[in-house]
Amino acid sequence: MKILILGGDGYLGWPTAMHFSAKGHEVLTIDNYLRRRAHTEAGTDSLTPILGSLPARADAWKEISGKDIGVVEGDLTDWATTERLFRDFQPEAIVHYGEIPSAPWSMISREHAVFTQYNNVVNTLNVLYAMRDITPDAHLVKLGTMGEYGTPDIDIEEGYIEINHNGRSDTLPYPKLPHSMYHLSKVHDSHNIHFACRVWGTRATDLNQGVVYGIHTDQTQMDERLMNRFDYDESFGTALNRFTVQAVIGHPLTVYGTGGQTRGYLNILDTIQCIELSVMNPADAGEMRVYNQFTETFSLMELAELVQKAGTEYGLEVTIDHIPNPRTEKEEHYYNAKHTKLLDLGLKPHYLSETLVESMFGVIEKYRDRVIRDHILPRITWTSGLREPVAADLP
Amino acid sequence: MKILILGGDGYLGWPTAMHFSAKGHEVLTIDNYLRRRAHTEAGTDSLTPILGSLPARADAWKEISGKDIGVVEGDLTDWATTERLFRDFQPEAIVHYGEIPSAPWSMISREHAVFTQYNNVVNTLNVLYAMRDITPDAHLVKLGTMGEYGTPDIDIEEGYIEINHNGRSDTLPYPKLPHSMYHLSKVHDSHNIHFACRVWGTRATDLNQGVVYGIHTDQTQMDERLMNRFDYDESFGTALNRFTVQAVIGHPLTVYGTGGQTRGYLNILDTIQCIELSVMNPADAGEMRVYNQFTETFSLMELAELVQKAGTEYGLEVTIDHIPNPRTEKEEHYYNAKHTKLLDLGLKPHYLSETLVESMFGVIEKYRDRVIRDHILPRITWTSGLREPVAADLP
Repeated sequence: MKILILGGDGYLGWPTAMHFSAKGHEVLTIDNYLRRRAHTEAGTDSLTPILGSLPARADAWKEISGKDIGVVEGDLTDWATTERLFRDFQPEAIVHYGEIPSAPWSMISREHAVFTQYNNVVNTLNVLYAMRDITPDAHLVKLGTMGEYGTPDIDIEEGYIEINHNGRSDTLPYPKLPHSMYHLSKVHDSHNIHFACRVWGTRATDLNQGVVYGIHTDQTQMDERLMNRFDYDESFGTALNRFTVQAVIGHPLTVYGTGGQTRGYLNILDTIQCIELSVMNPADAGEMRVYNQFTETFSLMELAELVQKAGTEYGLEVTIDHIPNPRTEKEEHYYNAKHTKLLDLGLKPHYLSETLVESMFGVIEKYRDRVIRDHILPRITWTSGLREPVAADLP
Repeated sequence: MKILILGGDGYLGWPTAMHFSAKGHEVLTIDNYLRRRAHTEAGTDSLTPILGSLPARADAWKEISGKDIGVVEGDLTDWATTERLFRDFQPEAIVHYGEIPSAPWSMISREHAVFTQYNNVVNTLNVLYAMRDITPDAHLVKLGTMGEYGTPDIDIEEGYIEINHNGRSDTLPYPKLPHSMYHLSKVHDSHNIHFACRVWGTRATDLNQGVVYGIHTDQTQMDERLMNRFDYDESFGTALNRFTVQAVIGHPLTVYGTGGQTRGYLNILDTIQCIELSVMNPADAGEMRVYNQFTETFSLMELAELVQKAGTEYGLEVTIDHIPNPRTEKEEHYYNAKHTKLLDLGLKPHYLSETLVESMFGVIEKYRDRVIRDHILPRITWTSGLREPVAADLP
């Protein structure tokens, strides 16, 4: 199958590209290096070293696997780029990771909020128009986020909810209470995609993904040149990845507030599985399927305690700090989110275990000299954006 | 009160500015003439002649009423403009009409869709940040649209719905099924505003307005230089305004499809009333109130028949044509939308009557020589955008 991967240089995009290539699919990736540029802006970096550019990574993949991954360095908000990509490649499936994925980054300032919404909404609109006009039978597999739903006081369904109201009933898009300017951009995308499906007959699968953890997939382990990126900074590091780095370098685990915040989590191996299941079982014409893509829920405290326990067994001394919550969010709340549709499609989950956490410690130890310690504590607040560093922030 | 009117050159913005000025408020308007430029692009125009610029209109108002309306010619997507506006004027209430308001215009092409969402979403984000950082106690009165809801198969509530689900309940944002790329932009705005209220304590009233009809308010009738604009073209003409022009010039009323499409309608006088009621009774800090702003519902056929009946009594020969529906929408559907909250605040509706329609005929007859007849029939389709004109489109 001809598979186009948007955001192919990223934490999920690069392993996904190698996975589909290894399986014999024709894979083309595009990336504009926004993540790398955001790191340069902030003075942060991936813990793991990444080869110089996406073409260099594809060259290494070719040398090691004998297989090709096509590369375009370009920006999907530019219509000429998007149009040429679709005309030349004629994709059958589009896996859309090509968005700014960070809630804190979107809250740094007005400029960051506007840019996040502009970038994510406009590039997705361009993809929808390219699909309508160039590849109308292709299938969009779009990464959404569980953070679109927020924390309502009722069960979270997969995208739609049947509402019985004043003696009538209808199945409607599940109401959204997004957590940040970034999560809002994903809500906007979901509405735009739903419109394309309803009016143009577009095929789409919207994957509302939980928080991804882990480093390696089968392909990233084959050679250091195929290494995946691994972010642990405030903007791009997800909770478990950040905690494991903190444990290895002897920094207290930084739990925001009480730590009762509960979210869905999944192993990066399961992200790849879910994407593959979605691609191989496309949505019908005019259908926007929504799957909640996670395998387990944890509160922040449960995660911190799991890392502490695994760390202790591994020989690390791990402490837990509750720091003032820089986010505006409920710290204690009801959370029951459905996630059966991908299991029904055949997902075999890799659940979080101490063994997995300990294997992460091993990889992190290898690169511990690369940790930038003065970007461990959060400085982006939901109420007033990025604050200046103070002495207490520094290592 | 210091009232800032965004989009002060428009069909609703200009009469609203004069209304508040007449009542003794300090009024500042801003407009970037987007509507006028869209008309130039399309070769269309307001039926009624408009004075050369917004400052000229404000000068005429000063001469006639003795009162000032401040004017800024500028674009709210430009942050420097928005920031200076808020810093200099320190508004207590912001009435936000400053958006592209047309569903068909947004469906002309990919460029028009992207520009509509960019313009509306970014200028509203700029307003929200200006309110957060400069005038945190001000109250935003934002024009949304009933078209955000679409036509669900259950009753439409005012912004929120209590959902009972699996033994629990919560009151959540009402699910949205927007009709067009334009309506989507308003859904995005609603989510962004709701976030600002939840996280920053912003005060906001989101007015989901129906289709407005009518020409005159107390002030527009005082002098021809204060005349309101009146659009009847495919992009900016609303249904009743378009039908009345067609009746006067002897063109069949163009009903899209069966004409069973049912929507909420209101007189422009009631728009002004609703805005004033909202401004004078501000939302609480952190509250996003949502009101459905219309007074009656009609199907397209009911409207067309009402115009035909009034036209016959007025001495016009009025026929009704069903033309292929250029939009993708349900032509027969359930529609029961609540609209009691503005009545509870004190709204006294002006219901649609044949007398009103006949008075519209009178104004239209005065300007009938200005009608551009080759823009009467629709050429913007929901499936593939603007089509080339064919012989049958021409008068």
